[in-house]
Amino acid sequence: MKVALVQKKYYGNTKKTIKKTVKSIKKASIKGCQLVVLQELHQSEYFCQYEDTSLFKYANSWEKDVKFWSKVAKEYNIVLVTSLFEKRTEGLYHNTAVVFEKDGSIAGRYRKMHIPDDPGFYEKFYFTPGDLGFEPIETSIGKLGVLICWDQWYPEAARIMTLKGAELLIYPTAIGWFDEDSQEEKTRQLESWITIQRSHAIANGVPLLSCNRVGFEKDNSGAIDGIHFWGNSFVCDPQGSIIAQAGIRNEILYADIDMQRTKEVRDIWPFLRDRRVEAYGNLLKRYCD
Amino acid sequence: MKVALVQKKYYGNTKKTIKKTVKSIKKASIKGCQLVVLQELHQSEYFCQYEDTSLFKYANSWEKDVKFWSKVAKEYNIVLVTSLFEKRTEGLYHNTAVVFEKDGSIAGRYRKMHIPDDPGFYEKFYFTPGDLGFEPIETSIGKLGVLICWDQWYPEAARIMTLKGAELLIYPTAIGWFDEDSQEEKTRQLESWITIQRSHAIANGVPLLSCNRVGFEKDNSGAIDGIHFWGNSFVCDPQGSIIAQAGIRNEILYADIDMQRTKEVRDIWPFLRDRRVEAYGNLLKRYCD
Repeated sequence: MKVALVQKKYYGNTKKTIKKTVKSIKKASIKGCQLVVLQELHQSEYFCQYEDTSLFKYANSWEKDVKFWSKVAKEYNIVLVTSLFEKRTEGLYHNTAVVFEKDGSIAGRYRKMHIPDDPGFYEKFYFTPGDLGFEPIETSIGKLGVLICWDQWYPEAARIMTLKGAELLIYPTAIGWFDEDSQEEKTRQLESWITIQRSHAIANGVPLLSCNRVGFEKDNSGAIDGIHFWGNSFVCDPQGSIIAQAGIRNEILYADIDMQRTKEVRDIWPFLRDRRVEAYGNLLKRYCD
Repeated sequence: MKVALVQKKYYGNTKKTIKKTVKSIKKASIKGCQLVVLQELHQSEYFCQYEDTSLFKYANSWEKDVKFWSKVAKEYNIVLVTSLFEKRTEGLYHNTAVVFEKDGSIAGRYRKMHIPDDPGFYEKFYFTPGDLGFEPIETSIGKLGVLICWDQWYPEAARIMTLKGAELLIYPTAIGWFDEDSQEEKTRQLESWITIQRSHAIANGVPLLSCNRVGFEKDNSGAIDGIHFWGNSFVCDPQGSIIAQAGIRNEILYADIDMQRTKEVRDIWPFLRDRRVEAYGNLLKRYCD
């Protein structure tokens, strides 16, 4: 199965950014891709660098956004994984991935469950933690375990998606470097980010797609310089082996996924067989003190 | 803190193998190591390549073995992680890591919880799954989250150890290649094994030590040629960054672990803060069907 990940910089306004994204989707469709994955909050700047109520404006178009991407999915006849800013009601917002079927219908959606909050990533101000749980989304190309960014650090999320039958793990994400960090620290962070996601593919015997943002975005509050989103979107197989990886630039990353490989890999390394579920109770605790 | 991992081949009999191992422990002690980790079932051949009741002989010395390694730990004034074949009673055996304090006392033990069973690794015949749960072992150098081989594929095990306060994750292991696999498959398997363990360090913000067996061991049943244990023992930091890695030969792998780094890493990437424990109930299921 041919897939594409659209890794893009923010073009200074939503209109231009969306236009460029649609152009990439068109290209991927022409190349025969059945699935296109967009990066986290792909319509706009990454607006969580500081806390400002005026930035909730990006959620005002939520209903229009859903209609728009539905049309795009239908026009290019692809399963499309979007990442939008959901306005549920006044003062209640989510970071939500909406997945569209090839005919433009909504296949399902996932509300980001794990919400970060660190200098430069003030997401707890903007996003209510998801309340839909970890539910794979049934589509014509398979059951998609869609998770978002910070979720990628949690083996629990990937595992539950798998136990619920996810055949692919998919992460729209927006992660990058600060200038103040050393080159060594930057390398460690990028490596950690790739490694933990590859590990979810390995632990669960499923292919994984991670689509990250790229480009520099200034922190308009002036608290920090801004974030250099590190790109490096990638696709790996059920053994965590990388089959395609983007650089640190605008890029459509193509990959060909062998959906039969999961069975082969799980038959030789049957990790699901030997889980000691009766001994896992402490996973439901915050800390065992 | 200075640590050593003793990566060794099997020398054809237990007497010679144990002698060589003790010699390496002595060297590590002279170098100032406070912790020495031995590979899985380091006294003997890896006897699980086929099923034969005569091989339970390796557990007959269990009580003597514990006394022996206690003396070694005391003589060289180290915390010692061993991996032994425990005879609990007739027909009831475990794959057990016994940890000794610097004074030779038993700090604690861990019975392998996840038991593999694949061609060449018939462990379900030999080992009853552990019934002590995932309990870190308190020692003078910190709380050790000792797990064994197949456990390394389970993020659940590493997570529970961490939630119970483990400051280091430690894996005695015995994993290798079959000749019949292609070079590409061998590379993928080794990479998977390294990646999943690094991911436990990352997800939990703790350093990790993995001590693997090395050398070729013939399958005396003739079903397969045998196993080429792939060595590659390694130590990584709480970001999963490898700080020391062995080759595919007899080796004492030394590393210097910065026990303060956990706090620094967890403060910038506070994954434990944001776990959605109320949404993790399905982790206790075999499969959600």
